[in-house]
Amino acid sequence: MVSSYLQSEILEQPESLRRLLDAEQANIERIARIIRSRNPKYVTLVARGSSDNAARYSQYLFGTINSLTAGLATPSSFTLYQHPPRLDDSLVIAVSQSGQSPDIIAVVEEGRRQGALTLAITNVPGSPLAEAAEHNIAMHAGQERSIAATKTYTGSLLALAMLSCALSGDSTCAEALARVPNWVQEVAEHADDTIRRAERYAYIEYCVVASRGYNYATAYETALKLKELTYIIAEPYSSADFQHVPWRW
Amino acid sequence: MVSSYLQSEILEQPESLRRLLDAEQANIERIARIIRSRNPKYVTLVARGSSDNAARYSQYLFGTINSLTAGLATPSSFTLYQHPPRLDDSLVIAVSQSGQSPDIIAVVEEGRRQGALTLAITNVPGSPLAEAAEHNIAMHAGQERSIAATKTYTGSLLALAMLSCALSGDSTCAEALARVPNWVQEVAEHADDTIRRAERYAYIEYCVVASRGYNYATAYETALKLKELTYIIAEPYSSADFQHVPWRW
Repeated sequence: MVSSYLQSEILEQPESLRRLLDAEQANIERIARIIRSRNPKYVTLVARGSSDNAARYSQYLFGTINSLTAGLATPSSFTLYQHPPRLDDSLVIAVSQSGQSPDIIAVVEEGRRQGALTLAITNVPGSPLAEAAEHNIAMHAGQERSIAATKTYTGSLLALAMLSCALSGDSTCAEALARVPNWVQEVAEHADDTIRRAERYAYIEYCVVASRGYNYATAYETALKLKELTYIIAEPYSSADFQHVPWRW
Repeated sequence: MVSSYLQSEILEQPESLRRLLDAEQANIERIARIIRSRNPKYVTLVARGSSDNAARYSQYLFGTINSLTAGLATPSSFTLYQHPPRLDDSLVIAVSQSGQSPDIIAVVEEGRRQGALTLAITNVPGSPLAEAAEHNIAMHAGQERSIAATKTYTGSLLALAMLSCALSGDSTCAEALARVPNWVQEVAEHADDTIRRAERYAYIEYCVVASRGYNYATAYETALKLKELTYIIAEPYSSADFQHVPWRW
């Protein structure tokens, strides 16, 4: 039974991810060729909220798969202090579902002004962010009605993974990515079981979500979703850091 | 009345910061000249816990004052996945009170192997981290007996601010930094008043610490201290992100 925009959009993910794979593969390979020819020294990631978590996932992708140091930008340097860092040797990647956030756009505009390679990953092709960036990847997730990002979050993850894979020139990762929609479908088919298992946690007041590496982003996104949707206080942690924190349970 | 190592170490800060200013000024100017001559494309910061928060402060310093993009490293790329990114155009700065953390040392060793400029900021000059890095800044905080970092945290902040100031070549910031120990002394003299004001919060169960820019690090460090020392669930937030999160209070 589908009872909300949120739930229906969760179930749309296999289809939405398939559209992204089909529609953007050639464009992403083209962008990867441009990136390789420009040979940026590092990647500056700029995003907020769920998109920031997708950006966090790509730090590990670019670092581990592509040997490219990637760091999250500090938008305050651009907007609050108005002294942005040098970006000319950088690839600036902005991730935003709506493509509307003014401080994300400010970083991309500054990167472009300085001659950096700029790329926007958005779900709204004509948005101000998409216009500001030189290159674009569209998520093809369709309209997202729920405030909580679901299909656009996994769309961002897949778009970034497709880019990392195209940059690597490794065909085995492309074959793996082509199977992602089916894997997501399999998880969706177990939704009733997942809901049943979640019931035992209905009355928790706070929790920690700990992970690291590629799933460090998952810890952040899970915590954000718990806070947004259930008002449970949830805090993401690197499992490496968590070993050093005393807790009262 | 001084009742604990923690409290006595808090009160040692003016003296400890004065020692740092006196002992390291010439060394930091020397390191700044080397950095300027090597002209790194970006800064890779590597640290854990309180030192990670000091590193976060320096992202804004290097970005805003020195036009240098600085990002927090992803140690898992080095240790868990064993595919570190390229670091040869980077300045690698590690911050660690003890200089003992194996994953921090792994990042510095890899940076040095690749020919990156490496710098360790530690409170223990002969530590493995200090040995691993080509250049060193010592905090001169004396032994820290409390588990919770206090004088080494502010020592890290000051060391990073001294480095940013030396890199900028601007003499006005050096004059401002020379006054920091006296400002810290003034705050310490109001400790009784601070304690009295804190009493009204004695029974809170969770809280958010929100800030941004230079004080984004302060939000993180305040939240960490609350968790470590009081078991209050405290979560740091960018005040820009916090506007988008629904909370039940």
